[in-house]
Amino acid sequence: MNKQVYDFNEGNAKMKDILGGKGANLAEMTKLGLPIPKGFTISTQACMSYLNQKEDFSEDLIQEIKSHVKSLQLATGKSFNDSTQLLLVSVRSGAKQSMPGMMDTILNLGLNDGNLSVLAEETGNWVFTLDCYRRLIQMYGNVVAGIPSHYFERCLDKVKTAKGYKNDTDLNCEDWQGIITDFKAIYYKHCQASFPQEPMQQLFGAIAAVFSSWNNERAQVYRELNDIPDNLGTAVNIQEMVYGNTGNQSGTGVAFTRNPSTGENGLFGEYLINAQGEDVVAGVRTPASIDKLATDLPQCYEDLVRLSDLLEKHYCDMQDIEFTIENGKLFILQTRNGKRTAKAAFNIAVSLVNEGLISKEQALMQIEAKSVDQVLHPTFSAEALGAAKLLTDEGLPASPGAASGRVYFDAATAQEKAQAGEKVILLRQETSPEDINGMVVSQAIVTSRGGMTSHAAVVARGMGCCCVVGCSDLEIDEVAELARMNSQTLHAGDYISVDGTEAKIYAGQIAMVPSTGQEAFHTIMDWAREKAKLDVRMNAESKSDIRMGLSFNPAGIGLVRTEHMFFAPERLREMRRFIFSKNAYDQDAALKRILNYQLEDFKTIYEEMQDRPVVIRLLDPPLHEFLPHNNQEISQLAKQLHLTISQLENRMDELAEVNPMLGHRGCRLAISYPNLYKMQAEAIIKSAIIMKEKGLRVKPEIMIPLVGIKEELTSIRAEIVAHIEALLIENKTYIDYSVGAMLEIPRACFIADDLAESADFFSFGTNDLTQLTYGFSRDDAGKFINEYVNRKVLKLDPFQTLDEVGVGKLIEIAVNKARQAKPEMKLGVCGELGGDPRSIAFFHKIGLDYVSCSPFRVPIAQLAAAQAAIQFK
Amino acid sequence: MNKQVYDFNEGNAKMKDILGGKGANLAEMTKLGLPIPKGFTISTQACMSYLNQKEDFSEDLIQEIKSHVKSLQLATGKSFNDSTQLLLVSVRSGAKQSMPGMMDTILNLGLNDGNLSVLAEETGNWVFTLDCYRRLIQMYGNVVAGIPSHYFERCLDKVKTAKGYKNDTDLNCEDWQGIITDFKAIYYKHCQASFPQEPMQQLFGAIAAVFSSWNNERAQVYRELNDIPDNLGTAVNIQEMVYGNTGNQSGTGVAFTRNPSTGENGLFGEYLINAQGEDVVAGVRTPASIDKLATDLPQCYEDLVRLSDLLEKHYCDMQDIEFTIENGKLFILQTRNGKRTAKAAFNIAVSLVNEGLISKEQALMQIEAKSVDQVLHPTFSAEALGAAKLLTDEGLPASPGAASGRVYFDAATAQEKAQAGEKVILLRQETSPEDINGMVVSQAIVTSRGGMTSHAAVVARGMGCCCVVGCSDLEIDEVAELARMNSQTLHAGDYISVDGTEAKIYAGQIAMVPSTGQEAFHTIMDWAREKAKLDVRMNAESKSDIRMGLSFNPAGIGLVRTEHMFFAPERLREMRRFIFSKNAYDQDAALKRILNYQLEDFKTIYEEMQDRPVVIRLLDPPLHEFLPHNNQEISQLAKQLHLTISQLENRMDELAEVNPMLGHRGCRLAISYPNLYKMQAEAIIKSAIIMKEKGLRVKPEIMIPLVGIKEELTSIRAEIVAHIEALLIENKTYIDYSVGAMLEIPRACFIADDLAESADFFSFGTNDLTQLTYGFSRDDAGKFINEYVNRKVLKLDPFQTLDEVGVGKLIEIAVNKARQAKPEMKLGVCGELGGDPRSIAFFHKIGLDYVSCSPFRVPIAQLAAAQAAIQFK
Repeated sequence: MNKQVYDFNEGNAKMKDILGGKGANLAEMTKLGLPIPKGFTISTQACMSYLNQKEDFSEDLIQEIKSHVKSLQLATGKSFNDSTQLLLVSVRSGAKQSMPGMMDTILNLGLNDGNLSVLAEETGNWVFTLDCYRRLIQMYGNVVAGIPSHYFERCLDKVKTAKGYKNDTDLNCEDWQGIITDFKAIYYKHCQASFPQEPMQQLFGAIAAVFSSWNNERAQVYRELNDIPDNLGTAVNIQEMVYGNTGNQSGTGVAFTRNPSTGENGLFGEYLINAQGEDVVAGVRTPASIDKLATDLPQCYEDLVRLSDLLEKHYCDMQDIEFTIENGKLFILQTRNGKRTAKAAFNIAVSLVNEGLISKEQALMQIEAKSVDQVLHPTFSAEALGAAKLLTDEGLPASPGAASGRVYFDAATAQEKAQAGEKVILLRQETSPEDINGMVVSQAIVTSRGGMTSHAAVVARGMGCCCVVGCSDLEIDEVAELARMNSQTLHAGDYISVDGTEAKIYAGQIAMVPSTGQEAFHTIMDWAREKAKLDVRMNAESKSDIRMGLSFNPAGIGLVRTEHMFFAPERLREMRRFIFSKNAYDQDAALKRILNYQLEDFKTIYEEMQDRPVVIRLLDPPLHEFLPHNNQEISQLAKQLHLTISQLENRMDELAEVNPMLGHRGCRLAISYPNLYKMQAEAIIKSAIIMKEKGLRVKPEIMIPLVGIKEELTSIRAEIVAHIEALLIENKTYIDYSVGAMLEIPRACFIADDLAESADFFSFGTNDLTQLTYGFSRDDAGKFINEYVNRKVLKLDPFQTLDEVGVGKLIEIAVNKARQAKPEMKLGVCGELGGDPRSIAFFHKIGLDYVSCSPFRVPIAQLAAAQAAIQFK
Repeated sequence: MNKQVYDFNEGNAKMKDILGGKGANLAEMTKLGLPIPKGFTISTQACMSYLNQKEDFSEDLIQEIKSHVKSLQLATGKSFNDSTQLLLVSVRSGAKQSMPGMMDTILNLGLNDGNLSVLAEETGNWVFTLDCYRRLIQMYGNVVAGIPSHYFERCLDKVKTAKGYKNDTDLNCEDWQGIITDFKAIYYKHCQASFPQEPMQQLFGAIAAVFSSWNNERAQVYRELNDIPDNLGTAVNIQEMVYGNTGNQSGTGVAFTRNPSTGENGLFGEYLINAQGEDVVAGVRTPASIDKLATDLPQCYEDLVRLSDLLEKHYCDMQDIEFTIENGKLFILQTRNGKRTAKAAFNIAVSLVNEGLISKEQALMQIEAKSVDQVLHPTFSAEALGAAKLLTDEGLPASPGAASGRVYFDAATAQEKAQAGEKVILLRQETSPEDINGMVVSQAIVTSRGGMTSHAAVVARGMGCCCVVGCSDLEIDEVAELARMNSQTLHAGDYISVDGTEAKIYAGQIAMVPSTGQEAFHTIMDWAREKAKLDVRMNAESKSDIRMGLSFNPAGIGLVRTEHMFFAPERLREMRRFIFSKNAYDQDAALKRILNYQLEDFKTIYEEMQDRPVVIRLLDPPLHEFLPHNNQEISQLAKQLHLTISQLENRMDELAEVNPMLGHRGCRLAISYPNLYKMQAEAIIKSAIIMKEKGLRVKPEIMIPLVGIKEELTSIRAEIVAHIEALLIENKTYIDYSVGAMLEIPRACFIADDLAESADFFSFGTNDLTQLTYGFSRDDAGKFINEYVNRKVLKLDPFQTLDEVGVGKLIEIAVNKARQAKPEMKLGVCGELGGDPRSIAFFHKIGLDYVSCSPFRVPIAQLAAAQAAIQFK
């Protein structure tokens, strides 16, 4: 039989798989000699066995827990049934990965009607004792018996209102006794059983509840959101209680070793005097800043600073520390690597490297690639902001960024509206774990209560979602679905704009501008490009996109979509002239005019990109995409082209397709209209010649799309190359061009070795390849994909993260075949997935040379590529 | 250096690769001691070297040919330059596979102005000698110098008309001398050179022409049509001349050892007295039946019967023999396995087995699977025939079958009209190899001249195309594009109907009925099912299709397309009610009514199929296929369903798809509308219960289409199975059903092992799999696929013959994965390719259990499956 329970002094920080993050760190800190209340941890395996045994404790586990309770009683000199030294414990979950607010905690476990007086005598404080007991009943009732919290809270509020109390600390013994009676009645009513009096019964009930909470809905949502496997289980930590609520020499708080929003070095946090456990995190009372502790309890503050510093150095990362002060003595209850905003993550990582605590590789691994675009969060445009109406700046900047959206007052509505395509902002008094579904779909989160470590703040920072908390001048009426701030009333569906960096809220929508990051960001990106094996290129063709992308230092352009250049009115006209031409002469005349436009296009691109490589994809969409759309356009065009309307319509009917995605497009067009690609090749080469004369070394990479049959590539390539060679001879010059193929048809992957004979490079088009491998049209799948996700038929959207078993397998087959035929062949990816970190890891592992993504995703891809190179050397 | 030239006594029948079919058989017959004019064969490799060396003879080859000419002179005691014993030779092509009419022949080679008198003296016949010389100039002029035949023919016709001659034999010496002068002038005019007088120059010119003819257009078309590789080359046979045109004791003919139309045993053929070489085949003179030879030249006839019998027994197959009689002595010039109609092929194969000449396996291998549907050629319906107007029954039944179509008078027009989708019938005085492109696209071929072995007859039989030749009361004016028969005039584009079995031609179109084959056909099919490893099922759901298919004894139904049952008006109405239902109640009500229809459908199928297995595919098409099509239907439906037109249109807009092929269909429907599949499963099981009560052992195989993700299959299967099990319990009975998946999405192939966990069988849907693997929509590809074929980008249509490298590879991956997970899993194919012989060989090799095809293709598939089992044991 495996050991299932570990005393804190039996473990260490490396045992997170078994002890969970919290348990492993409690063990580590115990080893370091820190002031940690004694206790033990029940392993994650015990949790999984329990869940797999239909939620039943094995006899082995029961015995092992009982024996550790005995040891704890010995070590503390306290006992559940002692008449002088009463053992009370906390029971907390602790999974391998931190899941804030997702799992449940019970404090003060062991109290009952019979031993209340022991605690009261020991502490000399009946108010405290009764408060502890009512908390136990409340937490136990909620977590173990599943009684909604508001039953208890409403009862407490009723007493406070009746007596005119403002704070919980105003209640006296009699009040608490009444409340305890009421709480017990609530408990009985819901459970048809009395609140359990036997401490061991309480203990096993609490352990069972923690185990089961692994599978509650919130936990499942969080795991899905964060790609945490379902079979890890949670550990349970049983720990001797220490009390922050024994009076004004006591308190409880949360401290970060650096500022989690900015990364600034120095203790950052909040605490509450005379409070217990969840009071700070729950955001019920607005806590004080940690700096105030230096004046309130200077010795404790000094201890906290010293221990924080020690922990950060020990873990080589910014720490998120929970502490409790009991009658002037500091106890550390938990430490973990602190969640931080993306901006803070960059600053902290660079600082830690500069301070010599970690290596560049470690720094790169510390930053989640997904979070990169958070530091590049667009901000409000300065002009637009000038005209905007400020509603309030009273809140706290809990998570940076800027967003506009429609306000909603409950998570369900927010979720529903977001699914319908709206940009939503969640407005709540405070958030709780029940709100998670609504939070993940929101552009921004705003609360009227709570501090920088409240649930809303922590979750928002974790998600990179813009957030303002503690907006005290915001009166929210969740039932009436409206909010008032400074005489302005907001109704559900109204637009507001939120600046999470400045903690400002504006009325209406405000235009945004992209950001290009700050110093630490650029330092990290330099390191990333240094370590990465995969080059990162961008998909771009417009001057503005190229300029924006160049600020991220891409290795080149991986995809110029030439069709994007055909839609300006004067070009579209020529394209239509080409499509409707009655003879080869007209057709060539139209192509010649398009050629001149394309010449300018490519010159601009070369000029911007200088000597960086550029892949230009030849025309891809079906011709019917260029047709007129309505009767007015049709009759206008008929006049222009000297055709009858019925001639026009006949040709349009001819071009119509049942499944355009599978139709006459890509290189198939060039089989029917060889001059189309020849024209484009001519523009590419002629513009390169012009740039060469200006002293630029342009190396155009010409890409033929939608190849699925060997002869498509060989014949089109032969025509293009013959045309180019003739041009070069005519111009008595030389251009270092190459001709490759876009692999996006499943069949192409199986013949990649044959295709390699006629291609200088391949670029995988993951969009079409995914569409064809799944038989999903992106245009249509949107209609049923929600049902797929809701019914968990699809876990990850294959258009956002590479499907490794299907699409990935095809790419792997192609890579192997291509390399077999041509070991040095350049291989890349230019679909949406080129900017997805998990997909990039796969592309690194199978040995591609580059990925190409939208300019804005370039830095994410660069970081992901570096991380893949570090992780999969 | 390799040997490139072989004397006839150096080879044998197995050397077809080197000597070609004709050369190998000449060598074999020489070995058997048959009366074969002496000669030698230049190898196929020599041809390829010549073609690869830019059509130049290597010095080695020149020397080798010269040395064999010397040997031939020694063996015959004749010489090119002898003044008494003149050596004249024939030069004929002979590729590995017989290519009738495709390659060219030159006779009488060696004659010149100087040695004419030697031949004349030797034979005592100046008319014959001059006829031989003019033939040489004509053939050499045509084949080597490329002068169109009609120049020579017109010249000959002019003389005949002027002199009032009817036959060539009417011409005297003076006439021939005039013609020779004219022919030489024609030659000089076209070549700007005199007709070559030097025999060796003639010989090398002829060999070069034969070599080059390998690449002429006709040969290329024929090879493409018959899948003959381009790199085989042709051999050249140089053979001492024997003369059929020396007088009435001479002649030339073609004989089959059995009737090539019916298979009837006994010599069958035609001959011409006093004629040479190509006269019979060219159809210029109408020849006499071979039976007449028994009275004309009894000894020769007896020899021919004896030698034919010997050759058939030697080759174990029906022979096609060319012979020449020179002054009463029989020479065999060629033998080969005779081309035959499909009907004859079956009869001959069965006879040869019964006669003990070949085994059943050999019999099965002798019949081309593609030809099976020729014996099942539809015939005219008896009723329709009664009302039809007979135009003529004067022709010869050259190739059986029946067809209606529009008449055209030249190959080019026929080809053009056929490509435009018309059914065409080619009407010609006689056909020549130049007509091949028009012949292959015709439903029937009719000629006014020529016999049963004429070009038209041989080619039509080879292609299984219905053909009537020698229709002497048909006056065809090819220039005016009209034909007269029995006072009726036919213009281009008029419909006629041709019965190739009865040699009857009717006016207009006549309705057709399918045929189910005759005795020998059924014998062969019994043997085929005995030898095949693959079961053959049919795709069918209508009672009439099922009944028709059952006559071919299929192993079951491999595909019931349930959607075909939804289009009858009363069902379509319920389907629309389902689609437009506003609530679950209306939806269920509609489904319940559809359930009742489906119950009857399945009962009928079970009743017809008895205990044979039936695979029923659940609904596959997108819902928009069931929508109303025009405003009238829409407003009618709105009334029926008590909806406004705009409500209807909104829902229709909702259902519209950009790429329906990649849209919301197949099992994706069941994710959104689970009750749809449950309803179908219920109908399948309830009808099975009813049939069980009637004593039938029904084993329905329920197939879920379009699976691409594991969870699709697991969740839908779970729902269906739960529903069925509840039904069975409710009915206190048991049905042996199974649930499988249709694999038609590329991704499904990669996860076949995972899918196998939740499937009892797989059936590959090759249509969709091919569409997705190529990214081709069958609905749209038609528009550009012609260009693909014309430019040889596509060699085989992947929708007609499996693409082994792409689609086949995916299927192979899936088969291996499925068998790994479940070694005994039943695997089949139910797309169009299930009836294609070449694809069936592949499916046999990768170890599928069955193929399923349209009822009419079942016998082809059965034979192909047997052949695959014999060939790939």
